[in-house]
Amino acid sequence: MAKDNKTLDRVFSPESVAIAGASDNQFKMGNRCVQSLIDIGFEGKIYPINGKVDSICGLKTWPSLADVPGDVDLVIVVVPAQYVAETLRMAAQKNAAGAVIITAGFNEIEDEGGAVLYAEITKIANDAGIKIIGPNTFGMANISAKLNASFTPPFSHLKRGTISMLGQSGGVCHLVAFHAIDDNVGMNKVVGLGNRCNLGFPELIDYLADDDGTETIILYVEGIEDPRAMMEAAARATRRKPIVGLKVGQSEAASRAVQSHTGSLSGRHGLYYAAFEQAGIVPAQDTVELLDIAKIMNIARPPAGNRVAVMSFQAGPGIMLTDLCVSHGLEMAELSQKTVDDLKKLWPNLTIRSNPVDLAFLDVMDSFGDVAKIVLADENVDSLIVFYLDVLSLFTAVVSDQLIPIANEAGKPVVMCVNFPTRLSAAESDEGFAKFHANGIATYPLPERAVKALKGLVRRGEIERSFGPP
Amino acid sequence: MAKDNKTLDRVFSPESVAIAGASDNQFKMGNRCVQSLIDIGFEGKIYPINGKVDSICGLKTWPSLADVPGDVDLVIVVVPAQYVAETLRMAAQKNAAGAVIITAGFNEIEDEGGAVLYAEITKIANDAGIKIIGPNTFGMANISAKLNASFTPPFSHLKRGTISMLGQSGGVCHLVAFHAIDDNVGMNKVVGLGNRCNLGFPELIDYLADDDGTETIILYVEGIEDPRAMMEAAARATRRKPIVGLKVGQSEAASRAVQSHTGSLSGRHGLYYAAFEQAGIVPAQDTVELLDIAKIMNIARPPAGNRVAVMSFQAGPGIMLTDLCVSHGLEMAELSQKTVDDLKKLWPNLTIRSNPVDLAFLDVMDSFGDVAKIVLADENVDSLIVFYLDVLSLFTAVVSDQLIPIANEAGKPVVMCVNFPTRLSAAESDEGFAKFHANGIATYPLPERAVKALKGLVRRGEIERSFGPP
Repeated sequence: MAKDNKTLDRVFSPESVAIAGASDNQFKMGNRCVQSLIDIGFEGKIYPINGKVDSICGLKTWPSLADVPGDVDLVIVVVPAQYVAETLRMAAQKNAAGAVIITAGFNEIEDEGGAVLYAEITKIANDAGIKIIGPNTFGMANISAKLNASFTPPFSHLKRGTISMLGQSGGVCHLVAFHAIDDNVGMNKVVGLGNRCNLGFPELIDYLADDDGTETIILYVEGIEDPRAMMEAAARATRRKPIVGLKVGQSEAASRAVQSHTGSLSGRHGLYYAAFEQAGIVPAQDTVELLDIAKIMNIARPPAGNRVAVMSFQAGPGIMLTDLCVSHGLEMAELSQKTVDDLKKLWPNLTIRSNPVDLAFLDVMDSFGDVAKIVLADENVDSLIVFYLDVLSLFTAVVSDQLIPIANEAGKPVVMCVNFPTRLSAAESDEGFAKFHANGIATYPLPERAVKALKGLVRRGEIERSFGPP
Repeated sequence: MAKDNKTLDRVFSPESVAIAGASDNQFKMGNRCVQSLIDIGFEGKIYPINGKVDSICGLKTWPSLADVPGDVDLVIVVVPAQYVAETLRMAAQKNAAGAVIITAGFNEIEDEGGAVLYAEITKIANDAGIKIIGPNTFGMANISAKLNASFTPPFSHLKRGTISMLGQSGGVCHLVAFHAIDDNVGMNKVVGLGNRCNLGFPELIDYLADDDGTETIILYVEGIEDPRAMMEAAARATRRKPIVGLKVGQSEAASRAVQSHTGSLSGRHGLYYAAFEQAGIVPAQDTVELLDIAKIMNIARPPAGNRVAVMSFQAGPGIMLTDLCVSHGLEMAELSQKTVDDLKKLWPNLTIRSNPVDLAFLDVMDSFGDVAKIVLADENVDSLIVFYLDVLSLFTAVVSDQLIPIANEAGKPVVMCVNFPTRLSAAESDEGFAKFHANGIATYPLPERAVKALKGLVRRGEIERSFGPP
């Protein structure tokens, strides 16, 4: 393990990267891979390998990997399938720790030649101790090392954070990463596993469990040969860090497609989710939920139970939140008599002091904090969701000032549901929300997303309690 | 009816608007209502009523509604509850067609005085023939008339379109409208019904059914006294225009909150959705789905059946779409032998020619259109979903050129699922997608949204077929 970690550290934080198959044609992956490294501001050496042109994206090229001076930590491979083995042999000579093989056409195709090539490259890599990400992957990125080893330059817009993702589909990794860019959620590593030569879920989950840069893990699973090894690695990791997972391939048609895509069976879907539960992986149903749950688990401590209080400045969304809590298996907290009495003192003229707490008539400048304090102090309340509409984050400035010290003191998770047109005020909201996030309070724009995220955090709490005393 | 429509036309397209309770304090609703009219570029006369300051938002004020020269078509009322009756009497003298009563404190509060005031203002309005939106509403907007008669100036950013919404919660109207701004979906009218004096769902559904500016109707329902009148109006309207509806108040806690909010019972939730079905209202489960279904029904003809083909440039999202279609009750089309053979001619070396169709190995510049043509021609295929990732809409330009003529010729609905970080390329995508939308092809960023929207369109098809021959 220790040796592997050292090698993988070189793979994910290389000092030098070569691109075998670099191209000066902007429409080719071999060009975009070079651009990705430039856009993210990679600070190590970049060696584009190309025998025909002198420079690519403004960088000097090298005719062959063998011509590059000194060792190369990581080789990104975009040459045609029949040249991959030769490239790996040269990578071995260059003492490479890893190769990201973007090239497809191995075990996922029907032609037997694909399987032969796959066996060949696996042997070369294993003999040389080269760790392979792929083949047939979009690549990977390690934002904390300013490494974008993928054919997608926009990954360079990801904010640095502590959530890492392992995904069996490049497309799905993109859905999550693009969502992270839009929602301003920090990521650490995003890895497209591809067809897995010698790095699969078990090895990489173990690595991320040890990885100081990673505090929360996202898994996207289509189907694997040996689910047991993955689940065992996950069961080890979840004792140290939260994991959220999504499994597809439920329907028969999807299951067939999984086999075509990954070369493995999708397996029985229900069994996977049962295994998720056993391994302590929090389940998600789509990519938005994946990141939303990761985001809250990454910053908030789980609540002691599933009893939720809802406070809303707008009645309709408060009602929606209430329906959503109940339909997702959370419980609407029954406010204690003391809470009702205390709220009555604040609002002598209004009758609505049940949960959801309607704040429509409240002057936020005065007494929002008082209400939040009363509700969070209620022994029947495990967590709180607060909804409001906000353009330009004007409200957020007031609410956060009042709420953060109260939430910190109460030690119960608070989830903000704040809606606004992102086109008009994404930047202002980033700033307003940063204060919440720094204090363990996650924000979501929609009631359904806030509730599903909180449900994930509640599940994480159950998992932690199941570990028993350390 | 004809007379009512004429009055309502004056309400929704007024030539003059007075704001009773206008304020020069930017934190007050009476100020924001004036700003809303200015921001949207209202072209009629604006009369801020305020006896203390000379001007508000740069507009001359009038000490009293009585002082305003000539008639006033619409009065926005933000004075305290006890002054609303007097304001309405003055509005009657000014021959007002309508009043938007934002003021709260009527039948939704426990104090009996609220009910008395409510009865009083209803009588004044009915005697004078004044149509009331509210009380206790955020207001309304008619984008096509450049009218933003609400306390929310950002509604001015809504694009003009042909989708109109009636909602029993201002907060929920905001969720939908803000989503429309972000997704660049055009709206026509957005009306917060509030506590409904003499304009409720039945009257306004009838009006929108006749309204030339409205082609698709969105309803958000919490609970109403007379569901039958609403459902009868809806049943009439759905024969002319599609309607999509969301009902909340399912759980007991939410149901209690509905009563507090709207002064009405939420009723039995299941009965509402059964009534939706009978009235031909397409059901939605959240605000995103509401607008997503409205968007596709507004531009696309429903498919002949529920058999869907999926084509994806990325395998993982294609698999997700497949699972989603099946779990939402759509059927994955079984491609005919002819289709399989034709695809084989295009891709002799690949084995995957089943549904979902994996385009990962395709050179989009060459043959995407050929594949789409083959799949859409299949008699087993009723509709098509196409997925790809796209930053800066580069791909969209190529795909749309090839796909639009083919889709038009096939006469089957095509749904695009195109994902990208909106922070990086929202503007480019607006432009790229405009071409799709102009040709009846709706776009969505996420698999789950594309599938739910298509499901809504399929349901609309069933509803239309249930009408029988005209």
